[in-house]
Amino acid sequence: MSRAAGAPPAVGVDIGGTTVWAGAVEESGRVLAQVHRATPGRSTRPEVVEDVIVSAVREVLLDARLTPDQVVGVGVGAAGFVSADRRTVLFAPHLSWRDEPLRDRLSRRLSLPVTIENDANAAAWAEHRFGAGQGESRLLLVTLGTGIGGGLVLDGRVERGRHGLCGEFGHMVMVPEGRRCECGNRGCWEQYASGSVVLREARELVRAGGPYAAELARRCGGLPEDLDGPAVTAAAHAGDAAAQEVLAEVGRWLGLGLANLVAALDPGCVVVGGGVSAADDLVLGPARQTLARHLTGRGHRPVAPVRAAYLGPSAGLIGAADLARIEQTPQV
Amino acid sequence: MSRAAGAPPAVGVDIGGTTVWAGAVEESGRVLAQVHRATPGRSTRPEVVEDVIVSAVREVLLDARLTPDQVVGVGVGAAGFVSADRRTVLFAPHLSWRDEPLRDRLSRRLSLPVTIENDANAAAWAEHRFGAGQGESRLLLVTLGTGIGGGLVLDGRVERGRHGLCGEFGHMVMVPEGRRCECGNRGCWEQYASGSVVLREARELVRAGGPYAAELARRCGGLPEDLDGPAVTAAAHAGDAAAQEVLAEVGRWLGLGLANLVAALDPGCVVVGGGVSAADDLVLGPARQTLARHLTGRGHRPVAPVRAAYLGPSAGLIGAADLARIEQTPQV
Repeated sequence: MSRAAGAPPAVGVDIGGTTVWAGAVEESGRVLAQVHRATPGRSTRPEVVEDVIVSAVREVLLDARLTPDQVVGVGVGAAGFVSADRRTVLFAPHLSWRDEPLRDRLSRRLSLPVTIENDANAAAWAEHRFGAGQGESRLLLVTLGTGIGGGLVLDGRVERGRHGLCGEFGHMVMVPEGRRCECGNRGCWEQYASGSVVLREARELVRAGGPYAAELARRCGGLPEDLDGPAVTAAAHAGDAAAQEVLAEVGRWLGLGLANLVAALDPGCVVVGGGVSAADDLVLGPARQTLARHLTGRGHRPVAPVRAAYLGPSAGLIGAADLARIEQTPQV
Repeated sequence: MSRAAGAPPAVGVDIGGTTVWAGAVEESGRVLAQVHRATPGRSTRPEVVEDVIVSAVREVLLDARLTPDQVVGVGVGAAGFVSADRRTVLFAPHLSWRDEPLRDRLSRRLSLPVTIENDANAAAWAEHRFGAGQGESRLLLVTLGTGIGGGLVLDGRVERGRHGLCGEFGHMVMVPEGRRCECGNRGCWEQYASGSVVLREARELVRAGGPYAAELARRCGGLPEDLDGPAVTAAAHAGDAAAQEVLAEVGRWLGLGLANLVAALDPGCVVVGGGVSAADDLVLGPARQTLARHLTGRGHRPVAPVRAAYLGPSAGLIGAADLARIEQTPQV
């Protein structure tokens, strides 16, 4: 390596349900350059998803004026089950990957060492290292996007569970016989607290057509399917009661699930990321109140603080890059 | 110490909601002698509970023909919140302890080093070291007794959380706005899956008075309040359909909660202890089926095996003794 001071940068890639992010990341967590692509749909062949990753990594290296031999490796955060040896994506609900040997395939195509990690684990690691949970060795992260992603840092390391499948918080059953989830269960947490729920509820209000939803209807030209998350958040920030109500309801369900997780795991802090976290206190306020109201033993114990994620949509790629750097750096 | 081979024994004490167990335990996990006492009620002064512990420890030393200087220390497993520094019981729902400096008080009275641990953590440790989860470094334990106790071994160590309060699985909300729990919440898991629930349901059947409950009524002389857990389990083992149904229903709720915990934590195995585990497959069979049916990602992942606890009511004291020994043994 030609860089004299500090460790070389790493490339991080975050493959979410809708967007692939890639970035070149310094040891300090600073992102030197960042690009994104649309995630290929569920019906796309695995090779096409790889093509997208490879082209995003090459573009980000060009943008950051780095040659491949100037980076220590590539970290990939993937929305799916990553095997315990972290070579294989066992199952990715939003992609066509089934037992996909992603690490070796990407490593061969990129001629670089590749580290695979669950996307929410990577985001949790980034918030622990550089973000809202800096200095907290026991951090619980939930991201509210299409679904709920979950990551856990315990004792200053990523907790992956026995088979690499730790942190599927979004599919804890919150309501027995409740709403159908695409995972095949009913009543999963993410059917009550996620970006999709914000949209589902706001669109339903628009469809109902009453004056209460006038502002939301205005923001999507009366076409409920054209309403998106940022529009609902903007309406709420501008004072619209209907939009605020939708976000507060999601916040209360968020808080109820967090009360369960805090009772079970007693983390030092909870970090909430994903698109919904842009609504900040409109969601996190009700979440904190519900957590405080429902946490068992309240009055006899500290209540973990609930913080908005700090690193935004870059958290996953920053964490993946940092984990790749750690894996490729000989331990002293 | 006068013993030439191996580490000296330790004394373990388990303070449950109804019974205090004490035992002298060898390094191998073998119990040399064991005594029990009734747990003093919630209205009893803290000093009285200490008296019971001190007298039980002294009796067990006599029974095992050990002098205090022949044991390495005393481990106490307590049903309650133990502070992160493990000197203080912050809150014990079944006792009068509130910010009770138990470690120092017992240590002074016994003139021995004392280690405090949550009772379910101690039981999880015992099952990990000597019982149903031997060799499994990621073990989740639930005990179904008066309520649900929870313990977690991760990476071969007891996971205690940020404030020492990890593992309160019994107070995860399973049914929003469900049954009232004495913790102040509604719908807690232990309101649907515990020894108390078995009794509640079986007594209700007897009270209803129909022929379906004839066998259960016979076993309590027609007095529902005289029915106890072992009687229900015995009736079920003898083939009584009503008793079997009650146990199976508790088993299904057990399995649903386990599906949530396995999704969240991905343990290598689940160990079920407490009085209800005496019903064995009558509870664990339906629990396993429900876990397999509700675990997210099923078909794409291993499902953790669910095993009956091996060490029975001695698990807590064995684990507490072993943790005391480890704490008092200089690490090489």
